[in-house]
Amino acid sequence: MKNEIHEECGVFGIYSTVEQPLQNSVYYGLFSLQHRGQEAAGIVVNNDGVFLSYKELGLVHEVFTPSILESLGKGKIAIGHVRYGTTGDNNRSNCQPIDVNHVKGRMALAHNGNIVNAHQLREELELKGSVFSTTSDTETIAHIIVNERLKSSSIEEAVNNSMDKIKGAYSLVIMSSTKLVAARDKHGFRPLCYGKTEDGSYVVASESCALEAVGAKLIRDILPGEILIINEDGVQSITDHVGKASRTMCIFEYIYFARPDSVIETHSVHETRKEAGRLLAKAFPIEADIVIGVPDSGTDAAIGYAEESKIPYSMGFVKNKYIGRTFIAPGQKAREDKVKIKLSPIHSVLNGKRVILIDDSIVRGTTSKKIVKLLKDSGAREVHMVISAPPFIGPCYYGTDIDSKENLIAVQNTIEEICKIIKADSLSFLTVEDMLKITGKNEGFCTACFTEIYPTEIPRGTVKNRFELPLSKSKTRFSKIEDEDIRL
Amino acid sequence: MKNEIHEECGVFGIYSTVEQPLQNSVYYGLFSLQHRGQEAAGIVVNNDGVFLSYKELGLVHEVFTPSILESLGKGKIAIGHVRYGTTGDNNRSNCQPIDVNHVKGRMALAHNGNIVNAHQLREELELKGSVFSTTSDTETIAHIIVNERLKSSSIEEAVNNSMDKIKGAYSLVIMSSTKLVAARDKHGFRPLCYGKTEDGSYVVASESCALEAVGAKLIRDILPGEILIINEDGVQSITDHVGKASRTMCIFEYIYFARPDSVIETHSVHETRKEAGRLLAKAFPIEADIVIGVPDSGTDAAIGYAEESKIPYSMGFVKNKYIGRTFIAPGQKAREDKVKIKLSPIHSVLNGKRVILIDDSIVRGTTSKKIVKLLKDSGAREVHMVISAPPFIGPCYYGTDIDSKENLIAVQNTIEEICKIIKADSLSFLTVEDMLKITGKNEGFCTACFTEIYPTEIPRGTVKNRFELPLSKSKTRFSKIEDEDIRL
Amino acid sequence: MKNEIHEECGVFGIYSTVEQPLQNSVYYGLFSLQHRGQEAAGIVVNNDGVFLSYKELGLVHEVFTPSILESLGKGKIAIGHVRYGTTGDNNRSNCQPIDVNHVKGRMALAHNGNIVNAHQLREELELKGSVFSTTSDTETIAHIIVNERLKSSSIEEAVNNSMDKIKGAYSLVIMSSTKLVAARDKHGFRPLCYGKTEDGSYVVASESCALEAVGAKLIRDILPGEILIINEDGVQSITDHVGKASRTMCIFEYIYFARPDSVIETHSVHETRKEAGRLLAKAFPIEADIVIGVPDSGTDAAIGYAEESKIPYSMGFVKNKYIGRTFIAPGQKAREDKVKIKLSPIHSVLNGKRVILIDDSIVRGTTSKKIVKLLKDSGAREVHMVISAPPFIGPCYYGTDIDSKENLIAVQNTIEEICKIIKADSLSFLTVEDMLKITGKNEGFCTACFTEIYPTEIPRGTVKNRFELPLSKSKTRFSKIEDEDIRL
Amino acid sequence: MKNEIHEECGVFGIYSTVEQPLQNSVYYGLFSLQHRGQEAAGIVVNNDGVFLSYKELGLVHEVFTPSILESLGKGKIAIGHVRYGTTGDNNRSNCQPIDVNHVKGRMALAHNGNIVNAHQLREELELKGSVFSTTSDTETIAHIIVNERLKSSSIEEAVNNSMDKIKGAYSLVIMSSTKLVAARDKHGFRPLCYGKTEDGSYVVASESCALEAVGAKLIRDILPGEILIINEDGVQSITDHVGKASRTMCIFEYIYFARPDSVIETHSVHETRKEAGRLLAKAFPIEADIVIGVPDSGTDAAIGYAEESKIPYSMGFVKNKYIGRTFIAPGQKAREDKVKIKLSPIHSVLNGKRVILIDDSIVRGTTSKKIVKLLKDSGAREVHMVISAPPFIGPCYYGTDIDSKENLIAVQNTIEEICKIIKADSLSFLTVEDMLKITGKNEGFCTACFTEIYPTEIPRGTVKNRFELPLSKSKTRFSKIEDEDIRL
Repeated sequence: MKNEIHEECGVFGIYSTVEQPLQNSVYYGLFSLQHRGQEAAGIVVNNDGVFLSYKELGLVHEVFTPSILESLGKGKIAIGHVRYGTTGDNNRSNCQPIDVNHVKGRMALAHNGNIVNAHQLREELELKGSVFSTTSDTETIAHIIVNERLKSSSIEEAVNNSMDKIKGAYSLVIMSSTKLVAARDKHGFRPLCYGKTEDGSYVVASESCALEAVGAKLIRDILPGEILIINEDGVQSITDHVGKASRTMCIFEYIYFARPDSVIETHSVHETRKEAGRLLAKAFPIEADIVIGVPDSGTDAAIGYAEESKIPYSMGFVKNKYIGRTFIAPGQKAREDKVKIKLSPIHSVLNGKRVILIDDSIVRGTTSKKIVKLLKDSGAREVHMVISAPPFIGPCYYGTDIDSKENLIAVQNTIEEICKIIKADSLSFLTVEDMLKITGKNEGFCTACFTEIYPTEIPRGTVKNRFELPLSKSKTRFSKIEDEDIRL
Repeated sequence: MKNEIHEECGVFGIYSTVEQPLQNSVYYGLFSLQHRGQEAAGIVVNNDGVFLSYKELGLVHEVFTPSILESLGKGKIAIGHVRYGTTGDNNRSNCQPIDVNHVKGRMALAHNGNIVNAHQLREELELKGSVFSTTSDTETIAHIIVNERLKSSSIEEAVNNSMDKIKGAYSLVIMSSTKLVAARDKHGFRPLCYGKTEDGSYVVASESCALEAVGAKLIRDILPGEILIINEDGVQSITDHVGKASRTMCIFEYIYFARPDSVIETHSVHETRKEAGRLLAKAFPIEADIVIGVPDSGTDAAIGYAEESKIPYSMGFVKNKYIGRTFIAPGQKAREDKVKIKLSPIHSVLNGKRVILIDDSIVRGTTSKKIVKLLKDSGAREVHMVISAPPFIGPCYYGTDIDSKENLIAVQNTIEEICKIIKADSLSFLTVEDMLKITGKNEGFCTACFTEIYPTEIPRGTVKNRFELPLSKSKTRFSKIEDEDIRL
Repeated sequence: MKNEIHEECGVFGIYSTVEQPLQNSVYYGLFSLQHRGQEAAGIVVNNDGVFLSYKELGLVHEVFTPSILESLGKGKIAIGHVRYGTTGDNNRSNCQPIDVNHVKGRMALAHNGNIVNAHQLREELELKGSVFSTTSDTETIAHIIVNERLKSSSIEEAVNNSMDKIKGAYSLVIMSSTKLVAARDKHGFRPLCYGKTEDGSYVVASESCALEAVGAKLIRDILPGEILIINEDGVQSITDHVGKASRTMCIFEYIYFARPDSVIETHSVHETRKEAGRLLAKAFPIEADIVIGVPDSGTDAAIGYAEESKIPYSMGFVKNKYIGRTFIAPGQKAREDKVKIKLSPIHSVLNGKRVILIDDSIVRGTTSKKIVKLLKDSGAREVHMVISAPPFIGPCYYGTDIDSKENLIAVQNTIEEICKIIKADSLSFLTVEDMLKITGKNEGFCTACFTEIYPTEIPRGTVKNRFELPLSKSKTRFSKIEDEDIRL
Repeated sequence: MKNEIHEECGVFGIYSTVEQPLQNSVYYGLFSLQHRGQEAAGIVVNNDGVFLSYKELGLVHEVFTPSILESLGKGKIAIGHVRYGTTGDNNRSNCQPIDVNHVKGRMALAHNGNIVNAHQLREELELKGSVFSTTSDTETIAHIIVNERLKSSSIEEAVNNSMDKIKGAYSLVIMSSTKLVAARDKHGFRPLCYGKTEDGSYVVASESCALEAVGAKLIRDILPGEILIINEDGVQSITDHVGKASRTMCIFEYIYFARPDSVIETHSVHETRKEAGRLLAKAFPIEADIVIGVPDSGTDAAIGYAEESKIPYSMGFVKNKYIGRTFIAPGQKAREDKVKIKLSPIHSVLNGKRVILIDDSIVRGTTSKKIVKLLKDSGAREVHMVISAPPFIGPCYYGTDIDSKENLIAVQNTIEEICKIIKADSLSFLTVEDMLKITGKNEGFCTACFTEIYPTEIPRGTVKNRFELPLSKSKTRFSKIEDEDIRL
């Protein structure tokens, strides 16, 4: 009985022409991908075939102290990973990158996504005698590739032969003794792009903001189904699986996951969010005095809404910037209301005003209810909540932790009911149709969490597992947000 | 030879009708005053005359772990302090509140400000045999009050008798065995206000945001020269020194120090900043495509400028929110350019645009230069820098660390020269006249750092001390900001 | 190419009839085995088939804080491990117990010893597609057993079928979902015993001192080649491999490794050391005034020597008991002479005396030289060094880190030459013949490090590996002792 | 109402002819005085008049990490302190050395002892306006000296003038801008000696072992009542108070406090303990098979007893050397019996034997009872407990924490009754007469805790204070030992 850990993550890889402390570059890359995973971080540096690795629970700059960075020496290739996942020391073994020894050498691998047939693959491998030391589907991917490697003449051939076996969402960065390999599943669920620095190093990352962080210019996204190989001969591409499936990139990357300054498949994330705001203003014109966003994720759409509606964009809250991941609120009452500790409304802005409040999503509704109350307590006459995404109605099996149905407020309630629950004066959600327009493309997206249209078979037994596995202490991402009231 | 430490700080005090773990309230109060001092924090709880205290270098939530909070027991009175000051473990003894034993009992004291005759007072005290264990002027204040206490029948009488002796800026929160006392110098340099919670506790704090943090409603500011006494009989006021000097509240509290959601002397800090933006738009109309603010301190004024000028307010940067106080940038190059690590420009917003960039001040110009470059590298066609304060031309002796003249770029350079240095297309500063209009009051402010008009005598030997004192490792606040490129 | 890590370790397992926080028992067991490994510690608790595990670099009480112990829940079976091995965070993955998932369930395994055919086994496994995530031979053992498990009906059958494949030294404690299994290689290189507590729990451990630590009475040693199975039906034994090879228990366990209060194969370790002292006194009668031991390992033999020789046993040194594993000596000079920091000679005891100094071994001679100098500087007229073991002449391949030949002073030098190097007045070593008499048995021992008579084939390529493997930062144990001058 | 903290401590000072990182020397000195105080450590370095200081709760090597040592720079004079005292973070302010500013400069002071008129002195000072920031009597001493300094032409004159005012036990090391001063009260309660290194530095320390630790040779003890001044002119002595009172050095320094390798007033501590053992053997001849000591403090006397009685000295226990100050025993049962965790009896030594067990003291009897049980459980036929000191019957007011009467088992019980309580077969204490013979001097000792003959007036209100002061969380030293069962 297995525990596939479901997570949103960030991956990073770099290939340099000269030996240098590449971990520093990986550090900056991971630091700029921190929003994709705050639970753990890891770096593996390849120094002429010798892999030095460090991974630990914590934020990038907590895990990688100067002395630990220094202990990783130098190298020409290095990869890294930030992970959102379970908490608890017991799960440290699930940190990535995974670093394994096999008969033809050594391989390190970092994965963003979630494979839907991990259960079956693992069973088959175990029946052949494979031994697993972690509970993550990443280890399963590593075993599949290593098994293919025995029959292949190169790491890229092994990856290519593995791609039909591994089903679901995976953006992979793989390091062998001499190569950096990047691969993206044929649906392209998770983003993955690459670029080049001025001094000729190649960089692969989940988002373009990580390329910028190390001074690399974005070349392009890795294609769905593509395998990119970087070694001393430069960059090569295997496209055997390109075009073998419908492109279904996660649209929630634009709406929430990615960083505003990233560019994914040529679209600025910030602009898509602003566009969502504009589309909302068109679809839901509201009589109001000010538009405010829930910091930080509602800000972009709020600016778009304000622009379109001509209602002034305002600063509704001061967000306490000293709250860290480890902040503990003393006292029972405080623990119950972290929203108030993190967000301080500005009375002079709100008092007597009709407020349009933009946020990116409602999961359970708890936080929204608290924010609406905060605004009303600060004198807001009306609070109109506008959400820059459609309501969640289905879980995600492709690497994010959109909660199971029973925890999604929109599964059990109509929009009107939700509006009553959160005590807003009105509540509007971006429609699925409008959502598809935010990049102007109108297709090529996975919208399963909003539509229950899943681009692949649903993983066997997954839902059951998630609630029965005693080791899985994982709280799903969004429920966690609700627990902690507000994202940092 | 003495070392008066100059600092901006935050003070907090609470008087409860029931014994309870008041440190939790102080914790939330200090947490919301964290922007006034990030170097150290301290709390003293008065449990029926027994003072339990803890103070340490670090942020409030770093210093006060749950177990340390618990170790402070319970009480009916408690005070706290956050401190900006020197770094280095050796200066831990300068943490506040100061907690002293004297013949009539015990007294704890927290101070925001800087007294200008500390040197003379200390010398006089030492000649009478007084022993000092710290280098802070707060200890001098404590000695003066204790000495007066010997001759007085109450702590408030002692404070009252001390007020003419202590010259300069001081907002004090003092705790005796049975009373909470608040006092503000007759000029009212630093803010200090009080309020009341629903359950009848009285709270005193540097800013009203700290009252909100504990659920208290602002009653009013302590008057310049006023002493407020809170004990089981309620609140009393001594006004012997009220009106005995010109009111000269630090105007930079509005422009930069205070939190936007605070209300000081009935004026919303956020609104005064927005007004500064509006005044700038009127005074310096610029042809441009977008208005952006340097996060976070330029945002309010940028919104005001945009509103007045009708040029759209935009999000020019993503600020990395995972950078903490202890962030260390590995690699030489990185260390040189922390601005870039903290601020990521959004290309799609900036590319090809004429940008108005609002910030609150320029000290040395180093950061401004880097930010302008960042914008230009991201495609900004023009960058017009607009500063929501006048140029700094003089040091501050009243509790902030406006640098000495030789480090102030505006002392040596004209605005045009500064504009060239930072490579902006234009540079505008708020005029002193406009600055005085931001609250609508037009008087009652200390503007010394912009005008060199000092409301009091300048402290004897201070400037000299600052550069000769070997123990004073203090970097002044603004130069520190420049060193570290950008505020958190 | 693999890196077998060579190490001396301690193992512990417990099977309880009732569910309870067994990690506490393992903690005490490991704590009493701490002398067998100070680099890392690990515990796995089996709660009804769910394994909760924690392992980390550090001493037992450093690794297992109260909160971490608590996080391990409860269970009926638990095992643990202390490890001597390499330092450096990068090797955290080599910590034990190893905890793996396989098709028939879960298995955790702790190992003391070193297998000599790890290289070949690993190669064979990798050719079948096995993936290794650590560099330790323990993972190889786990893979072998898991592979046998696929073909077997029980864990004990799998272990039994593995025993001829795994060659060399291994004392294993294995935990399956329902059983605790202990196994010892057919030579019996490393000790392993079991006992029972008053409340009916069975305990397996490297040494009897760990049984005492949890209130268990020693039943007997596990026989060389024996497999012991403990489950709800009690204790069963598989003896298929018993008697299939010569018994060659490591004699250095008596002389140095084991704790004096342990009983191994019915012999008190303390008594064997005292007997070594008596035999030395008979073989090397010396005219002297006092007998002293190097604390702590020379003390037992010194008491024996004194008893036999009638020369008074004395306290020659005060050992600084505040030095911990993490002690760092500031200053260059100090770093060079840690012996002096750890051992303070007592002048009044030594001054003018002819001293017999007992220690258990000389590896490189550096420490001995320093100790002799210390005594002479304190006034000792003569220093006669007497070693309670023969000279080391060969490396160990069975789980201890007796150094390679080039670092063994006795390989390059005669006893007389060593005596000159360390500047003693005389130097005597226990003869191999006398050593064999310390338990009265005279046979059944591995004496390879003193005689180069190896009971098994020597591992292929091992010596080479030790110096070429870039990841192996392992300093051998004894050279480490010399580096750090003296054991704690 | 004041809280005099009662403590046993260690002091250290060094004067060097050249500027160097003297903190390293102080570190080694304090490290060797660690047995005198494990709660806190502090160092102040004087770099040409600038004092850099660091003090914190913890062991010397915990408090002084390499980076903290480095931060203390260099200097020609430095002093340090180790403190036994209260636990709890709130008392960090009581750490020493005390470092104060006064009108004529700066002074740092470290104190071992306890003054009996602290209460009165403090009251007088407070009435003159003095402010105290700690609760320790050391701050009172500092104030007295600073007040005298105002009227004096030198620090030594100020100390000399203070000596009649300060009553009780004090061994002081004082540092001014240019001098190192050592002073010992006229009774000489606590030891204090000085020596010289080969390179001409002078060193002052509580015990000679600290001189050895920095390579200094003992010159002599500071005389009771003497003031020693070390500056660039060498060493000078003020003897105005020498001979002005009876010499009453604490005899328990020989029996327990001091380190065996120290020499106090020309007597080797180890030899005095051995002599105590011999005297006990003469006074209490017992038929037995072996003599064992409770490690580590009973060992010296046990060797003496064995020597005199001709009964063989044996190793009765293995002491777990991995237990540190911070060891926490998990599980309720364990917490109750830390003796067993720390001491493991060796069965083969004890089984069937009549055992003479030597320890240095019995306070409450709890530990003794547990040790006797441990021996009997290990097969000891008879256990004869022999104590190398007389029974405690009175509290100590001179700097040690001999408990108050109600906690001393010998106050309420006869020796026979104690013997029954601890379940020994016999119990003997060293007589006061024999105790006075251990140095051969027979006079000049304070024996108050054994005789209730106090050499000074008993401090006013002290006993009351100890139990009423709410801030004093101090557990007295010996009861603490009993709490924690056994010293480390």
